[in-house]
Formats: sequence, structure tokens, C-alpha cells
Amino acid sequence: MSTGKVVLALDGMGGDNAPEVVVNGADIARERYPAASFLLFGDPARLKPLVDRRKGLAQALEIVPAEDVVSADDKPSFALRRRRQSSMWLAVDAAAQGRADTVISAGNTGALLAISMVAMRMLDGAHRPALASFLPTSRGETVMLDLGANLECDAGNLAEFAVMGSVFAQVLLGLSEPTVGLLNVGSEELKGHEELRQAAVWLRREGSPVSFHGFVEGNDIGAGKVDVVVTDGFTGNVALKTIEGTAKLYTSFVRDAFRTSTFAKIGYLFASGAWVKLSKRVDPRRRNGGVFLGLNGVCVKSHGGADALGFAYAMGVAIDMVRYEYRSKLVEGLAKLHQVSSGPEEAPVLQVSGGVE
Amino acid sequence: MSTGKVVLALDGMGGDNAPEVVVNGADIARERYPAASFLLFGDPARLKPLVDRRKGLAQALEIVPAEDVVSADDKPSFALRRRRQSSMWLAVDAAAQGRADTVISAGNTGALLAISMVAMRMLDGAHRPALASFLPTSRGETVMLDLGANLECDAGNLAEFAVMGSVFAQVLLGLSEPTVGLLNVGSEELKGHEELRQAAVWLRREGSPVSFHGFVEGNDIGAGKVDVVVTDGFTGNVALKTIEGTAKLYTSFVRDAFRTSTFAKIGYLFASGAWVKLSKRVDPRRRNGGVFLGLNGVCVKSHGGADALGFAYAMGVAIDMVRYEYRSKLVEGLAKLHQVSSGPEEAPVLQVSGGVE
Repeated sequence: MSTGKVVLALDGMGGDNAPEVVVNGADIARERYPAASFLLFGDPARLKPLVDRRKGLAQALEIVPAEDVVSADDKPSFALRRRRQSSMWLAVDAAAQGRADTVISAGNTGALLAISMVAMRMLDGAHRPALASFLPTSRGETVMLDLGANLECDAGNLAEFAVMGSVFAQVLLGLSEPTVGLLNVGSEELKGHEELRQAAVWLRREGSPVSFHGFVEGNDIGAGKVDVVVTDGFTGNVALKTIEGTAKLYTSFVRDAFRTSTFAKIGYLFASGAWVKLSKRVDPRRRNGGVFLGLNGVCVKSHGGADALGFAYAMGVAIDMVRYEYRSKLVEGLAKLHQVSSGPEEAPVLQVSGGVE
Repeated sequence: MSTGKVVLALDGMGGDNAPEVVVNGADIARERYPAASFLLFGDPARLKPLVDRRKGLAQALEIVPAEDVVSADDKPSFALRRRRQSSMWLAVDAAAQGRADTVISAGNTGALLAISMVAMRMLDGAHRPALASFLPTSRGETVMLDLGANLECDAGNLAEFAVMGSVFAQVLLGLSEPTVGLLNVGSEELKGHEELRQAAVWLRREGSPVSFHGFVEGNDIGAGKVDVVVTDGFTGNVALKTIEGTAKLYTSFVRDAFRTSTFAKIGYLFASGAWVKLSKRVDPRRRNGGVFLGLNGVCVKSHGGADALGFAYAMGVAIDMVRYEYRSKLVEGLAKLHQVSSGPEEAPVLQVSGGVE
């Protein structure tokens, strides 16, 4: 673990509730992490009054003027070429150039990924970045990636994502040997796409840098069967949004159920403490902070609609990644992976038709 | 709508709780659907005592001896070649040969698909069968397919699945123009795999047999944004199991929340009526019955762990498909689709990199 100061570059203008949420989030983070200081990018005329209102924040924070803003509708390619003077671009650049240790933005995800890839480049041994996040499970939390950075992935990408997720879980969850599963339609060896089976072959080899569990299925995510779930960005994005939708649906079902009778309404009142506990458990702010893994830099994406607490949580993720030296651990892990994956090929496994269990 | 008798071929030995659940399910279905009669395939020594115990059932039901059983572990190819005398094979064959109008089995899904494809063949205009089922939404129910019959799908498959799902929703939900969405990572036109965009082009054309909404995302499933959600079997299977896992997780969260204090426990008791209502709403038995669409026959897969009520529900799905002439409606719809999809190609839509919003 590295000690000492951590400098956070903040995109002051990104997200639905910027800049208020960013400034208030920095204020919360400053109390939690006294070693943190902040470079806040954006419009000084809007940022300064907000900072000044927070007693003591100005001592730990420097406002860096940025004329432009990446909008939520900007296409990544447009933001990349035409928003060079935006708060997002300048914040990422500060982290890429070493003036900051990490960058946090609640802005346009696609633009943030594109800009980070160009400004930070990939880490040694990583070929594509993956978007990772935490999901609630019955055992605690599971890291899932890729959540949408890559629509199609080959076996090499998936194997690298496994290493990225494993190192991320080590650093953020404090696990020494997090278990990793590849998301598939069945847990038997023969099932699934060719790239999944090839990635599994590599991850299972002697000397592999991850503790590979094998294939997992959609229901294993919520059950917390493994600490890290790896999939391609298309499937991961669908699964993530399906979880969000299902959670929302069940919450509405529960609420409806308690509106059906007077007794139920009374029961609801008696149980109000339990509801608070429940909503804390499913509180998305506590899991706020999608992270782009594989970049030569630490870039955390806060949810666009996050509040100050959520934004502060995302900063905590970034700080942990810096402190616990995520990057050097990942370079080590990827080197090990490429050693085992370059070994002699095994006899190919025969593919079965159909995917139904 | 066709009137008159409906003959159901039942795999008496398939599923975790066979043959009891099958016989008891038939008894429930007989009361609900007086026009139904049953061919029950399996071991007479085990089936006859169960049938005789149910007063009056024997009049509507004929036991057809079958020596063999498809086991849950049988590979589809093995069941196809080596289980010719099984209750599943013989039941499917009865429906394929016209001795029954439909077949229902709670046995091995992969085997049932393989056997049905060989015995029933595809319907005119359909190239691959898809597994479809109902999912709960905040607006009621949504049909989703493919849930795992095909790991990879091309644009033609996806477009055909859209028609299959639309006709199924017409027949089962009584909707005259069900809306259809293609599952994707973003709702903008430019996103997603090439095959998704090509299918969307066809489904949107003048003369298309479906009311095409466009692309939908994972969270739109639970929100009930469309009546039919179409995807490939890999993504569909992951999404289905993710929904199951999330529902289970949230149920356990809610239960835990009500165990946290005496007040909460009292609240739980007061609200017990609400719980019953809630569990009815999420009761999987009410949505039991995955259906293989696109076959030249009606084949319904009951959940392996279904109880008698669930099995009876699956029979109800089969009866509706026969009565409301699902097959002829689908042939019509597919013919219309192939007419519009064989039209001149539009200029290709440029692909954007990355899939992140």
C-alpha cells in the first residue's frame, strides 16, 4: 500500500446534478480521506461560490478553469475531437499526465471511455478496457465486467478481463484470492461460445493469475457464487440493466402488496425501520462508481444521477485503487496470463449444437 | 378459433416430480378444459394407480405404455438416437403424427427440443425454433424469446423470432397488435450488433407483420415497455436467469429486513395478507410453460420442478395455441416477413465503435 497524498482530478461539470453534487461530494470525501486533495475542472464562476460555501474545502481544492462541457448527447467521437477544452478532457488529461493520481467524472460514459483511452493509453499487457462495477449479492458484493465498453470480445479480451476483475476485487474488497467465473448459458464444459471455452482453457492452466471457478449462469450473479463475473460488454450491459429493471419491478410489487389492506398498511408502518435497512442494502449510491479497467491510469465513472454521497463513494473507489497499487498488480497479473495463454494449445473441445439445458 | 376436442399428449415420466405431478396436473386441466382429453405416456404400473385415484380422470385419459425414460442428464443427441421408446419421444411423436394436437413435457429441455425438431420439423417459413416464455412486468406480462434454443442467431433468425413472439402474444395474451422490441445495449439506431440492426431494418419496413417498437434495453423487460422482447438464445438465457436470481435475492433481502426488529416482525404479521398477494404475483407456476415456437407442432415445456398447478397451466398454454390456431397465423406472418425482407437492401448504416452509452 502506498501512503501519502492522493490527488483527485474531478470533472466538475459532468452528470445530471453537476456542479453541486461534485463539490458536495468532494466535501464529504475530504472528511473521509484527509490525505486527499482535489483539482476541480469547470467554470470558475459556477464552481467558486459552491466551494466557498463549504468551510475548509478551498484549502484542499484547486479550481482549474475549463471553458467547455461534454454534453450527455455528444457522440464519443465528437467529444474526443471537439471537446478538448472541456472539464472532462482536462480532468482526464491531468490524471494521464501525472498532475493527478486519478480522475472521477459523472458525465457521458462513452465520451469518458474514448477520451481516457486516448489520453491514458492501455496498461502494459491490456488490449481493451472494460467497464466494471459492483453488484449486490446474497453474500455481499460481486464485481462484474465488461458492462458495455466492448460489444464483442475474443477469448484474449475475456481472459484479460478476468485478471482485471480479480485484481480489482483484491484491491477493493480486500480478498486475497477472489474467485472468477465466466458468464455462460450452462455450467458444463461443452457449452457456450467458442471464445468462452478458449478463455476458460487459459484461465484454468497451471500458473494462471486468477482463481478460476469455471462457468457461471445468470442466477449465480445474485447468489454471489463467485467474487468476479466476466462477460462481454453486450451481455454484461443487458444483464446489468435487467438486474436494475427486476429490482425496480420487485420494489414496486412489494410496495403494492402493502397498499392492499388496512392491516398491511399498519404492518408497513410497524416495519418502517426494516424498510430503511432494506433500502440501504439495495442503495445504488453504495455501489456507485463504474471503473474503466485496463487503462494506464485510474478513471472512475460515477453514475450520472448520483448524489453527493454517491459521488464521494466513487472517489473512495478511486482512492483505494491508487493506494493499493491496482495498476502495478494488474501489470503483474496480465504478464502471468500471457505466459500461460501462449503455452501449447490443447486438443480442441468438440462443440455441441443448441444451448438449452 | 377452432372448437371441439383437444387431445394432449403428456410425457408422464418427465420432470422432478413425475409422474404424480403430471397426473394431478391432468386432473386439474380436465376440470378447467372439459374439451380436453389426454394420452399419457409412461410406465403403466406407475401411472395406472395414480390415475385410478382421481375420480373420473380415467374417462378422459388413455395410458400409452412407454418402456424408457429420458433422464435429466441425457445429452440431446443421445436422447434423440437412443431414447426412441421413451415417454418423451412417444408423446412428441403422437403430436407430430396427428394422434394428438399438442405435447407437454416437464423433462430435459435440450432433449425435448432435439426430438421435437426431428419429429415435427419446422413450420413453413421458419428456419430455427425459439424457446419463448412469459416474464412478469409492471404492466402485466411480456413474452421473451429466444431463451436458449440458439446460442447464435443471424438477422433472419431474429426477425423470424419477432414474428413468432408476436403471434404467440396475440394468441395467448389476446392482443391484436402486440408491440415487439429487439434487446440491445442502447435504444439508438446506431448501436448493437450488425444482425440486430439488419433485423430492425426488415421489421420496420412497410408490410412488416409485426408492430415493431425498435430497440429495448434490459431494464425495459421488467418495465413492460413492449409486449414481446426478442434476443438471441445466449443473451436471452443469461437475462432470464439473471431475472430469476435477482428476484430471489430481493425476496431474501425483504425477508431479512423483516427479521431485524420486534416491530418489523409485528409488521410482518400484520401484512401477511399482503405477502400472500405478493407471492401470487411473482408465482412462477402462473407463468409456467416455455414453448418452442417455429415447429410444425405445438410443444410446451413445463418447468422441471413445477407442481400440479404449474403443469396444468402449461397445458392451458398448449390448449390456447391449438384453439386459436397459432400455427396457421404464424405461417401467414412468416410469409409476410419474407416478402418484406427480400425487398431491395437499404444503404448500410455505419457502425460506431464501443457500446457504452
